[in-house]
Amino acid sequence: MRAVDLIRKKRGAGELARAEIEFLISGFTRGDIPDYQMAAWAMAVLWRGMSSDELAALTEAMLHSGRVLDFCDLPAPKVDKHSTGGVGDKTSLVLAPVAAAGGLCVPMISGRGLAHSGGTLDKLEAIPGFNVNLSLAEFRRVIEKCGCALIGQTEEIAPADKRLYALRDVTATVESPYLICASIMSKKLAEGIDALVLDVKTGSGAFMKSEADAERLAGLLVGTAGRMGTRAVALITDMDQPLGRHVGNALEAEEAIHVLRGGGPDDLRELCLELAGWMFALGRLAATVQEGKRRAAELISSGRAAEKFREIIRLQGGDARVVDDTSLLPHTQHRADVPCPAAGYVTAIQCEQIGTAGMLLGGGREKKDEAIDPAVGIVLHRKVGDAVKKGEPLCTIHYNAESRMAEARELIERSYRIADAAPKRRPLVLRVIEGESQTQKT
Amino acid sequence: MRAVDLIRKKRGAGELARAEIEFLISGFTRGDIPDYQMAAWAMAVLWRGMSSDELAALTEAMLHSGRVLDFCDLPAPKVDKHSTGGVGDKTSLVLAPVAAAGGLCVPMISGRGLAHSGGTLDKLEAIPGFNVNLSLAEFRRVIEKCGCALIGQTEEIAPADKRLYALRDVTATVESPYLICASIMSKKLAEGIDALVLDVKTGSGAFMKSEADAERLAGLLVGTAGRMGTRAVALITDMDQPLGRHVGNALEAEEAIHVLRGGGPDDLRELCLELAGWMFALGRLAATVQEGKRRAAELISSGRAAEKFREIIRLQGGDARVVDDTSLLPHTQHRADVPCPAAGYVTAIQCEQIGTAGMLLGGGREKKDEAIDPAVGIVLHRKVGDAVKKGEPLCTIHYNAESRMAEARELIERSYRIADAAPKRRPLVLRVIEGESQTQKT
Repeated sequence: MRAVDLIRKKRGAGELARAEIEFLISGFTRGDIPDYQMAAWAMAVLWRGMSSDELAALTEAMLHSGRVLDFCDLPAPKVDKHSTGGVGDKTSLVLAPVAAAGGLCVPMISGRGLAHSGGTLDKLEAIPGFNVNLSLAEFRRVIEKCGCALIGQTEEIAPADKRLYALRDVTATVESPYLICASIMSKKLAEGIDALVLDVKTGSGAFMKSEADAERLAGLLVGTAGRMGTRAVALITDMDQPLGRHVGNALEAEEAIHVLRGGGPDDLRELCLELAGWMFALGRLAATVQEGKRRAAELISSGRAAEKFREIIRLQGGDARVVDDTSLLPHTQHRADVPCPAAGYVTAIQCEQIGTAGMLLGGGREKKDEAIDPAVGIVLHRKVGDAVKKGEPLCTIHYNAESRMAEARELIERSYRIADAAPKRRPLVLRVIEGESQTQKT
Repeated sequence: MRAVDLIRKKRGAGELARAEIEFLISGFTRGDIPDYQMAAWAMAVLWRGMSSDELAALTEAMLHSGRVLDFCDLPAPKVDKHSTGGVGDKTSLVLAPVAAAGGLCVPMISGRGLAHSGGTLDKLEAIPGFNVNLSLAEFRRVIEKCGCALIGQTEEIAPADKRLYALRDVTATVESPYLICASIMSKKLAEGIDALVLDVKTGSGAFMKSEADAERLAGLLVGTAGRMGTRAVALITDMDQPLGRHVGNALEAEEAIHVLRGGGPDDLRELCLELAGWMFALGRLAATVQEGKRRAAELISSGRAAEKFREIIRLQGGDARVVDDTSLLPHTQHRADVPCPAAGYVTAIQCEQIGTAGMLLGGGREKKDEAIDPAVGIVLHRKVGDAVKKGEPLCTIHYNAESRMAEARELIERSYRIADAAPKRRPLVLRVIEGESQTQKT
């Protein structure tokens, strides 16, 4: 078997056999197949797509390029949630404790933020002392104790994905929904989970700008999970404006805590309950999603979810007092309001610009492994649909360094659209895409 | 400027600006842009194609990655011929001396054979002592003396093409007509020629199997030449069976000499006259192609073309006596006839199989830089359209080693199709594609 022949086959819209895909992925992971051949293959995949057989084979080959965790000995249903990423999305910090408090086992392996989108690990690390760099043995110990742990990807999990993603990043082949699907699923299925709730974002702040693209990816994700024997559902959710009101790592941790304490903004709370409802339903601890949502709401109102978060923070070395006193989270030295330029209604907030502004303030990375400032960010006082008066603050910028403040402020100012008439709102959850075998009543 | 953004642009069917293409090619040639990015870009080009502006910019960037020769000081019109390659194609060995004898300057830089197709350099090297590895200074000296020299590509000519071709070969991106065009034209225009006659082969033994693909490539070649100020014409010619009757390096040199001495098979002689006619016409030493053909025929019948070949051979260190005594060319120890399995007509000779058989006998290379046996090959006694009797020899295999003889013989046997009815013949020159500015009467 020669890599060049497999590239040619894919280029000609042919379907690669399972053994051929395994040959490519194992050869690439070992370093026998060079980057330039994988780059050409990735571009051919972007061009020609993949059959569901090929996608399943690719996902499996990438999954088995590293360790696959096994929590079979733990009686609780193993369920995780994955989001395709957006601006202000701090749902994992709410869902992990809610799900674990409700009896699910949540072995959550997350990523860091890049460019305009934030990452769960960065938000957790805003909590003083919180350690996301657990070994897999430590990860297991925390899960055994409290039903949940949140860590970063280790070298042992899907190394093929790590190599391939780095290559895709520099060869303009990130955007293939097939390669995205295999990348997500190979890492998530390595967690050894029974079920997975996917939050596929669509809109100006999402990777998938159009609803059609989001639905296509959602279909691939749910279909691939099903073929691998994992129950899955995908919620297509709105990312045309930031989720919640806080953007920035410590600010988002704070807002997640607000939700866990029974408060927080409506959209964030509603999405957390929806996702948690599906987690309980897929984990078969609730007969319906509605029942799951009620269970999640009770876990919050009873304080059990907040207590679970304290427990997780403690077990991962963090200062659990933040759950009760968010002033212990890092804060910036300076704040500046962005005044509204005219009266009317907010008709749009360009998410990507808000996210990029947060990065410019020091809260995100342009390149991997850059240091970030956890305290900086933006608090949105007005969101889409709100009536606004001229001069009142649209949002407040939390910052430390002046260096790129002007640039960030300009982006934020430009991100808001103000008009005379109120905009039509679109629902937060646009569609639910279920697998074939696990249809649930919502 | 970042390579990844240019790959993304091309991938999205965008058109790269001249400066962007120059950035890619110069960065790649210097080693600043890695192979994996060029591989992804090449696959994107295969997918999306190129505009004529992009193709001209690419050709020019590749051309100027190395030295561009200049024979302006020589009064004769500088004209070359290039063939896209086939089986039994020894026209260069005839055309170079005919054109030079007729007053053209022919600075011919050729390639070697690979896989089933032969190369002009290998055929020349079958002549004892012939040296194709001249420096560019020696190349010029020979041209100054006799109007023609034939050498291999040097490191100084279009190094970007050399690097890119090696990469395309292992990433299944050879087939893009745009990349083929830029590869051919960057090398040919580096010869500093005024005009170029292109022989674009189509059929079972050609790189372009379909006539439509051949015409498309021919259009790109002629159009690109025109944009660079070089007069060009492309003849789409048949390669559904080997050209002439001899396949193999020394055998082909011998057959070329037969043509130069006024003999040789009809198809080969006719194609040589046609191509030479165009060379004289484009070089403006003949008013029409017909006049050019007559001139070529006279140069052969008068012995002046053969005399020019003796001169070239001498100046390049070879034994010029081969022109009068082809027994001085290398010969094999063994010969074996392939008998005809049934009476009827030859309806097809699968060119690629004949070429591959020649390679298996030791006359060609599976990989670059392999040593070859110049003497081996196949002499075809019957060609398409010929009536055949059962048991008479279809062809004779010239061989030295027994090792892969059985495999070669089987391929040759399979390559002949015999049927009861005579096949429809197709003309040797299927179409002529001229540039916009140099229309000539044929």
